[in-house]
Amino acid sequence: MREHGCPEEDLFSFLSSKRREDLGYHKILSSMCTPPHPIAARAHALFLETNLGDPGLFPGTVALEELLVERLGTLMHHPEAGGYATSGGTESNIQALRIAKKLKPVSSPNIVVPASGHFSFQKACDILGLEMRVAPLDANFRVDAEAAGDLVDKNTVALVGIVGTTEYGMIDPIAALSDIALDRDVFLHIDAAFGGLVVPFLDHPVPFDFELPGVASISVDPHKMGMGTIPAGCLLVRDPSCFASLNVETPYLTVKRECTLTGTRPGASVAAAVAVLEYLGMDGMRAVVAGCMENTRRLIEGMETIGCQRAVSPDVNVATFSCDRAPPGWRVSRTRAGHMRIVCMPHVTRDVIEAFLKEMGEIYA
Amino acid sequence: MREHGCPEEDLFSFLSSKRREDLGYHKILSSMCTPPHPIAARAHALFLETNLGDPGLFPGTVALEELLVERLGTLMHHPEAGGYATSGGTESNIQALRIAKKLKPVSSPNIVVPASGHFSFQKACDILGLEMRVAPLDANFRVDAEAAGDLVDKNTVALVGIVGTTEYGMIDPIAALSDIALDRDVFLHIDAAFGGLVVPFLDHPVPFDFELPGVASISVDPHKMGMGTIPAGCLLVRDPSCFASLNVETPYLTVKRECTLTGTRPGASVAAAVAVLEYLGMDGMRAVVAGCMENTRRLIEGMETIGCQRAVSPDVNVATFSCDRAPPGWRVSRTRAGHMRIVCMPHVTRDVIEAFLKEMGEIYA
Repeated sequence: MREHGCPEEDLFSFLSSKRREDLGYHKILSSMCTPPHPIAARAHALFLETNLGDPGLFPGTVALEELLVERLGTLMHHPEAGGYATSGGTESNIQALRIAKKLKPVSSPNIVVPASGHFSFQKACDILGLEMRVAPLDANFRVDAEAAGDLVDKNTVALVGIVGTTEYGMIDPIAALSDIALDRDVFLHIDAAFGGLVVPFLDHPVPFDFELPGVASISVDPHKMGMGTIPAGCLLVRDPSCFASLNVETPYLTVKRECTLTGTRPGASVAAAVAVLEYLGMDGMRAVVAGCMENTRRLIEGMETIGCQRAVSPDVNVATFSCDRAPPGWRVSRTRAGHMRIVCMPHVTRDVIEAFLKEMGEIYA
Repeated sequence: MREHGCPEEDLFSFLSSKRREDLGYHKILSSMCTPPHPIAARAHALFLETNLGDPGLFPGTVALEELLVERLGTLMHHPEAGGYATSGGTESNIQALRIAKKLKPVSSPNIVVPASGHFSFQKACDILGLEMRVAPLDANFRVDAEAAGDLVDKNTVALVGIVGTTEYGMIDPIAALSDIALDRDVFLHIDAAFGGLVVPFLDHPVPFDFELPGVASISVDPHKMGMGTIPAGCLLVRDPSCFASLNVETPYLTVKRECTLTGTRPGASVAAAVAVLEYLGMDGMRAVVAGCMENTRRLIEGMETIGCQRAVSPDVNVATFSCDRAPPGWRVSRTRAGHMRIVCMPHVTRDVIEAFLKEMGEIYA
């Protein structure tokens, strides 16, 4: 550390110069995050000093966390769902698998995860000592439910389905997975970190949530399509009592026990998450999602016109293409199978799409 | 969710009403958090949309994380320390133990933790499948190093020492633990989540960090005495290469692998953490810590004058007393052994101490 402090003006000149080295979101087509909605930023600032890790001190902020869980639970067809605001999809996935592991104490536990599963499942398995069995995908990059079922055995503590896969934006056949889960009595966790705030707002939403009786838990991230601030994830469970298995005793806090993965937890990003949902309502979210889906369709159509074929017709706002060059300055990403991948987040407006297509057209002319 | 959105004015009227239900920090004497320094709040806002989970998009923010690690590593006498900004002490402790477990693959791994250890060690052991061996404390609530050493066996993957215990504010005999760690070839993790930003600024700091050759990793939280924003922890390791054992591959991101526990990670609270350290420098931090320690001494003296005896003379700014009643409105906490506990954070000013002592005096008159 410096011996003497740095004057505020010099410090912020330095910080601003660093901030300018970051890319602006307007050319980022590869991220499942997006700049926070202005409502989120305002709510975040209002709750900046709050700590949900010591709930007795911040009962108003706790009420907002409860409201977030209630709103998302209701959206997922289960107003009585248990839940809490996590640091994001990885914590949600770890905690869901931790619950599942405790519910079925076997000596060599395994989980069955689609090959399209987010890498956080590898982390979770490494941490929790779970064997990860990878279920193959069908030609449309959705999990093959029958093959997944075949991987389930007496040591399987959880089966995973994905709503809005990271690479191709697909929705797994959750209804079929739900049937398997009920039939084989296995915990079904739905990773809807991305799609959980897309699918309910589509014109024709497919069932993927607690409406399906086999679904035991759902991960959904307000800091992705919820346009919240980072970090804001949410883990929802059908049976609120299953969090009890994660409790540790917490002497010297205002509560006696806690089930969260982290201790000190920001209230700011939770307030921001709930603020956006309240501000927009179902109507507003439908409009945002309709825009993203329309832009995704326009992007696919435009790309195919210039000779870049879609890899698949996506279920949510992630588009993938058989082409390898992107114009300079733009950030696209690449799937493991080598497709160009673009996430049509809210900041990827129609104008952005047209500008990108124009430059792509020049490359592929 | 609501069908129709809520007007901004009504929404913020609601949010503000919830915020008012939270307690103000001025009467919170029980927390290891404190309102963010104004510099932290300003830096946080500047970096609100950044995501360290996708570093290639935010190279300027990544440089600030590297600067934070360098500053804290240097403060801990090891400028070449490896490290990253965690979500807080719990993640830091989990990750340190995860590294230790990987370094020594045994079939029934255990760790040795002081009885004063934070409850996050219970979480970490539960998650990682580690046996937690609890080392007893001496009469001054510091771990009995010899007893801790006696608990170490061939299956011990880590030994833990604490710098600034949560309940009594004590510093374990880290030099003795370091000797044991070297002698028995065991990974020594120091939980300095609280004390890591206190001890280096004391008039007579005791050695507790990488200066001691047996120390392998250190947890230190800018969101506690660093007056940063939540979430901001930091895990430092002597050997940067040991993070490699935690890596998972990260297709479709701008980097190829990541070793962090979470995926999407806020840049805002990292910028805030480093901003406070740069703004204050060693001088400024020494002044903050000197004030907190002076207030701690004044509190103890004042409490003893009215008949509430100290439980112990603390090493850092946590004071504990043999008395059971506190004046209404004030939030103090209680240790497992039943002592009243007060953390003299920066918001607990001399005026706050005097006001509290006055009301205590009226109760105990």
